[in-house]
Amino acid sequence: MRTVGIIGLGLIGGSMAIDLKKRGFADKVLGVEADKVAAQAAMTIGLADEMVSLEDCVDRSDIIVVAVPVGAAVKMLPEILDRIGEKKIVIDVCSTKEHICAAVKYHPARKQFVCTHPMAGTEYSGPWAAQPGLFDGRACIFADQEESAPWAVQTILELYACLNMRPIFMSSSSHDIHTAYVSHISHITSFALALTVLDKEKDEKHIFDLASGGFSSTVRLAKSNADMWIPILTQNHNNVLQVMDTYIEKMQQFRDAVASYDEEALRKLIEDANKIKRIIR
Amino acid sequence: MRTVGIIGLGLIGGSMAIDLKKRGFADKVLGVEADKVAAQAAMTIGLADEMVSLEDCVDRSDIIVVAVPVGAAVKMLPEILDRIGEKKIVIDVCSTKEHICAAVKYHPARKQFVCTHPMAGTEYSGPWAAQPGLFDGRACIFADQEESAPWAVQTILELYACLNMRPIFMSSSSHDIHTAYVSHISHITSFALALTVLDKEKDEKHIFDLASGGFSSTVRLAKSNADMWIPILTQNHNNVLQVMDTYIEKMQQFRDAVASYDEEALRKLIEDANKIKRIIR
Repeated sequence: MRTVGIIGLGLIGGSMAIDLKKRGFADKVLGVEADKVAAQAAMTIGLADEMVSLEDCVDRSDIIVVAVPVGAAVKMLPEILDRIGEKKIVIDVCSTKEHICAAVKYHPARKQFVCTHPMAGTEYSGPWAAQPGLFDGRACIFADQEESAPWAVQTILELYACLNMRPIFMSSSSHDIHTAYVSHISHITSFALALTVLDKEKDEKHIFDLASGGFSSTVRLAKSNADMWIPILTQNHNNVLQVMDTYIEKMQQFRDAVASYDEEALRKLIEDANKIKRIIR
Repeated sequence: MRTVGIIGLGLIGGSMAIDLKKRGFADKVLGVEADKVAAQAAMTIGLADEMVSLEDCVDRSDIIVVAVPVGAAVKMLPEILDRIGEKKIVIDVCSTKEHICAAVKYHPARKQFVCTHPMAGTEYSGPWAAQPGLFDGRACIFADQEESAPWAVQTILELYACLNMRPIFMSSSSHDIHTAYVSHISHITSFALALTVLDKEKDEKHIFDLASGGFSSTVRLAKSNADMWIPILTQNHNNVLQVMDTYIEKMQQFRDAVASYDEEALRKLIEDANKIKRIIR
């Protein structure tokens, strides 16, 4: 009989709740949701067997999943570790890892914490966005796993195996560098694209009419939630700034090539960019 | 008995060939393809009933579709109009329209030319990329349609109705402004994103592992073909530069907000960007 407590029943927490229960990893799911409307929705949708207080959740669960925005998680984690019994495990699912790991580094219960980042999601948020199969086939990063007890890591590997995720191991600082390069910058370029189009194109009808599949897919991430992304961008400040500077530089090269009708430079830039085909389907 | 000749059997020309034949708009499809390998592939795939020379295609077709990159189309269109008989219609399907319309503005057969831009596509090119249903539900722009004979416009409206496209009418200069804002900039931001990630992240394994759905969709257009995009960006030079400048400005505002940990400015930027939800599904 295993009870999984999930703090924050949004897109990630809610989707985990669905599959961990359905696929038999959890016999019981306890949910914690600070927002009243979201809590009501989570119950209506049936994401958790029971909605409980944070304290009840910690006391009654074998595994506690912290699935709140990273700013709140940094504050919450040490408090949870303060009150957990010996055999319990706490994990987080946040998108930046250095601050999280630093916040619990010297905590006496550090070994019972496993720091993970399931690399899956959509541009939507809240319990309404939760869906079965969200994690299937994606990668899950385990950050600084040598700081956790092997038995705890083993159990969490099983949890993610149940979600059909493949584990990748790296340090929390590597995680933050690589996700800035690959994930965080994509969100920023989409936000900037949406701002540009909304600014230049005052007539929404035109945007709607002219948005072919290309624009929609490029701008999709611009729907992402501010509460989630503000702490990611500020916590991963240095890495994000570095990659933004490289991006602005590439954009400037493109602008110069267009401005000077330099077809050779444009060809080089486009064909270099095409190399992403080798990596991304 | 209606014969449609398609010059350039790539993604757009090839996809039109498939549906115009299958759905009964064309009784016969003649194909022209300058590239030998592509021509062979188009025949193998069965995109055209017959591969012919450009001259044969013009002489034997009732409707001639010019589906080559816009640089080549600008040169080819006056030559085609030079030799067409009275009842034939020529259309192009290029992504910029001002240069095209200027190139034929005073041609004696101008009324038999209908300038269109079906807003559909994928990041792939060549006859291999052609697919049925590519145009279904999308918009097709008719540029400067008052310069064409009404009977010619009517026939081409029927052609696009067969492809399940909804027609939108605007001037060629409006077209080029709006597509720069909505379509061309999306491609440039994707190219720059691919260049940034490939530059910062030398380890391809990391890109593969960490690329969640978000990165893949944002970078998708970076696979687009240089031969197609170089003429678009140079022909739509002024509009593209203007929108790139706005984009770089938005990116810089984002950078400044991250650099100064300005959470209020970040919230405003992200929530303004979120407004794209109202327009794009």
